[in-house]
Amino acid sequence: MEKKRASLDEIFSPRGIAVVGASPSRGPFVQGLQEAEFPAIYPVNPKYRELFGLRCYPNLQSIPGIVDHVVVSIPAEAAPALMDDCLAKGIKSIHFFTAGFSETGYQGGVELERTILDKARASGIRIIGPNCMGMFVPKSRVTSTIFGKPLQRGPVAFLSQSGGNCADLPFFTRPRGVHFSKLISYGNAIDINENELLEYFAQDPETEIIAAYIEGVRNGTRFVSILKEAASRKPVVIYKGGTTGAGQRAAFGHTASMTSSIAVFDAVCRQSNSIRVDDMEELTDMLVALRMATPIPQGPGVAVLGTGGGGTVLAGDVMEKAGLHLPPLSAEIREDLKEYLPLAGSIFGNPMDSTSLMSREGISAVLRRLGELPDIHMFVYHLGYHPVSHWGSSRLRSFVPQAIEGLLEAQRATGKPVLLALRPSPDLPGMKDFFAAQEAFVEAGFPVFHSLIKLAKALARLVAWNQAR
Amino acid sequence: MEKKRASLDEIFSPRGIAVVGASPSRGPFVQGLQEAEFPAIYPVNPKYRELFGLRCYPNLQSIPGIVDHVVVSIPAEAAPALMDDCLAKGIKSIHFFTAGFSETGYQGGVELERTILDKARASGIRIIGPNCMGMFVPKSRVTSTIFGKPLQRGPVAFLSQSGGNCADLPFFTRPRGVHFSKLISYGNAIDINENELLEYFAQDPETEIIAAYIEGVRNGTRFVSILKEAASRKPVVIYKGGTTGAGQRAAFGHTASMTSSIAVFDAVCRQSNSIRVDDMEELTDMLVALRMATPIPQGPGVAVLGTGGGGTVLAGDVMEKAGLHLPPLSAEIREDLKEYLPLAGSIFGNPMDSTSLMSREGISAVLRRLGELPDIHMFVYHLGYHPVSHWGSSRLRSFVPQAIEGLLEAQRATGKPVLLALRPSPDLPGMKDFFAAQEAFVEAGFPVFHSLIKLAKALARLVAWNQAR
Repeated sequence: MEKKRASLDEIFSPRGIAVVGASPSRGPFVQGLQEAEFPAIYPVNPKYRELFGLRCYPNLQSIPGIVDHVVVSIPAEAAPALMDDCLAKGIKSIHFFTAGFSETGYQGGVELERTILDKARASGIRIIGPNCMGMFVPKSRVTSTIFGKPLQRGPVAFLSQSGGNCADLPFFTRPRGVHFSKLISYGNAIDINENELLEYFAQDPETEIIAAYIEGVRNGTRFVSILKEAASRKPVVIYKGGTTGAGQRAAFGHTASMTSSIAVFDAVCRQSNSIRVDDMEELTDMLVALRMATPIPQGPGVAVLGTGGGGTVLAGDVMEKAGLHLPPLSAEIREDLKEYLPLAGSIFGNPMDSTSLMSREGISAVLRRLGELPDIHMFVYHLGYHPVSHWGSSRLRSFVPQAIEGLLEAQRATGKPVLLALRPSPDLPGMKDFFAAQEAFVEAGFPVFHSLIKLAKALARLVAWNQAR
Repeated sequence: MEKKRASLDEIFSPRGIAVVGASPSRGPFVQGLQEAEFPAIYPVNPKYRELFGLRCYPNLQSIPGIVDHVVVSIPAEAAPALMDDCLAKGIKSIHFFTAGFSETGYQGGVELERTILDKARASGIRIIGPNCMGMFVPKSRVTSTIFGKPLQRGPVAFLSQSGGNCADLPFFTRPRGVHFSKLISYGNAIDINENELLEYFAQDPETEIIAAYIEGVRNGTRFVSILKEAASRKPVVIYKGGTTGAGQRAAFGHTASMTSSIAVFDAVCRQSNSIRVDDMEELTDMLVALRMATPIPQGPGVAVLGTGGGGTVLAGDVMEKAGLHLPPLSAEIREDLKEYLPLAGSIFGNPMDSTSLMSREGISAVLRRLGELPDIHMFVYHLGYHPVSHWGSSRLRSFVPQAIEGLLEAQRATGKPVLLALRPSPDLPGMKDFFAAQEAFVEAGFPVFHSLIKLAKALARLVAWNQAR
């Protein structure tokens, strides 16, 4: 066979998609495409004549329209024969949701994987996976219910060797204002792998920020040069899974990945100025920082403001431990701020704790004065020092719009970014207020973090990344 | 004056409480006592004849009944005169909610503080604070609305130099099954301080676990010997605030605390086998581990089970990084487990990922077999690998009771504890399911943590503490 291999651009924008092995109980791929109004969906299963209101076909050959992409969830043993059908139908790419290949560690699975790879190489058909969740491409209306709604487009691309991590991420980033150009879960990576995807996203005009969850790298030398090139163009955030013995065993059982030494991986990240994080929560926080902190803080100097003594002591500790700098306030500044800040019940410095920071005027005045200081590059405002449920949801609800106005005024006047730590509540009524407040802050354009520690970590990485550029 | 000073036992069980400075807008102390049905509450404020349906008195002297304890929220300047009134009325203890003393750093505040301390020493009246939230003693029905409801009793005592941290803690621990014998926020600690409280809780029969938030220690030598004695009797968990320059400045502004070197503090904790944590979240997790993990795991060997490949790789990494040990499974064990575990889509080892772990029978069978291994001392089960909202709340709701049965069966059969990581959801419908699931697991007696990382940290500390005993 001499068939031309499809480019990733073609794979990310198929004209028709067949879902082989769809059934009433295995519907996420068909239903996701339906909800996204993808125009040409073909369920394939000889047992059904109709599925989810769509005509169901006995096999690929019986589909009348063009099919570029096939999603497969039949057992691994049936995969080689299906490859032949795909070739006959002129398919460009196959996403094997199917597992049971080399990741099992058993000879049969290893051989099956080799067989489908040989067939792919001979035919030019591209393979995503096997053992993965496939792709989410809002522009092309390609999705699955596992990625959730809506189909909003954004500037982040995510390549993930874990389907769960890939499917989780948009659920966690959406409420915080971060959306995607493309998500791809690539599992065992026998054909399309991290190198090809990184290289693609580095030049993809729809992608401004690249995120990756990687368990193992197949071609280390190529990876290093591709990562350097990608990171020189766009911020790259990497969560490397399998950094311990137990994690590495799990990574092998998960995607048959042979994980490399974390010391080597770490050095590669440092040299390329990629941002390495330790879990999906940190990856989420890092994307929020990169996407939402505008402008990017031009140095490590932070003024931390909020209410609550314990929270303020914590704020000072976690910011400095993370490597940020909290310049103490001079006597002159303290004198200037006296008119806004009562002495009793305040912590009158940086970090600052004052009930005056609970009004639009107070926030705006104090932040604007502090923003005049050249060694303060950003503001951190924290809220939720006491469970929202107790503190009084009516008080919080009326305060949030005031806080937003005051913070926006300060941000505009000083040209320095404001970042928020909003603490979740331990009960449901409190969480209702929490989500409402988060939505309002995110809509106003602020990066919102769920603890001071998380904010400090992400912020320190943002500052270090920016200074190393 | 030769008046006898009241013991902490007397202070924690007052017969009558006056609230000086109560007003319609400053009601947390009066309302909290009312809700708790404390029998003798006396609001004091010459401006009102009635407050919250209670008779309001113009001054302490006009109160007809016995008053042992006074809560004060009038301005600092009026504090010395109030001390004289207290002496005349035969008060045993005063809680100064009032701030504006030495923590301001201003001479006037320092002098006022010295005056009230002199008066306290001369009269035998004990002072809690100033600049603090006072006490929560369920047995005596002493509380404030800031501590929330209900008035449930438990085995943990918490002494806190931060009022916010003290008021937060019960909100965060209650849903996770941890309740208190006594909570006390002691602020500037001019009279009742960390040493006296630690010494008291060490011998308090109602207290089995001691927790502390400390910014500064007034008498280091005494503290060391008291801490050693306390920690030899009961587990002591300490969150030390003010460990960096910025944190120390904040701690001084907060409670006028001169913080000591964190290296010294750390050494003291190690020598006494106290458990040092880095923030209130970690303190909460540690209390959950100490209170709910039964029996205490007798070694570092953990079997980690759940569903989701990415989560399983993470589980392996975070457990080993925290210092726990995940023994790999032998070929023999893998052979035995084959009947329960499908090969495809599983990670067949330790950590283990399998959909078989989504049924009562599967959980029970797999955990019982693993529990036979002598190097496995506990089980970690994780749930929430995908946002609950998406994963299907009906599926989760029907699964939780099954999981509880399977885990209880395994725990009973093996005599080894099960700990749970239940991940919160990024949206409100998911959080509804999350809280319902948490409630069910907690009611069944399980320790529930909100991430694998948090669980791993608390568990590693628990194991290390137990091994050092």
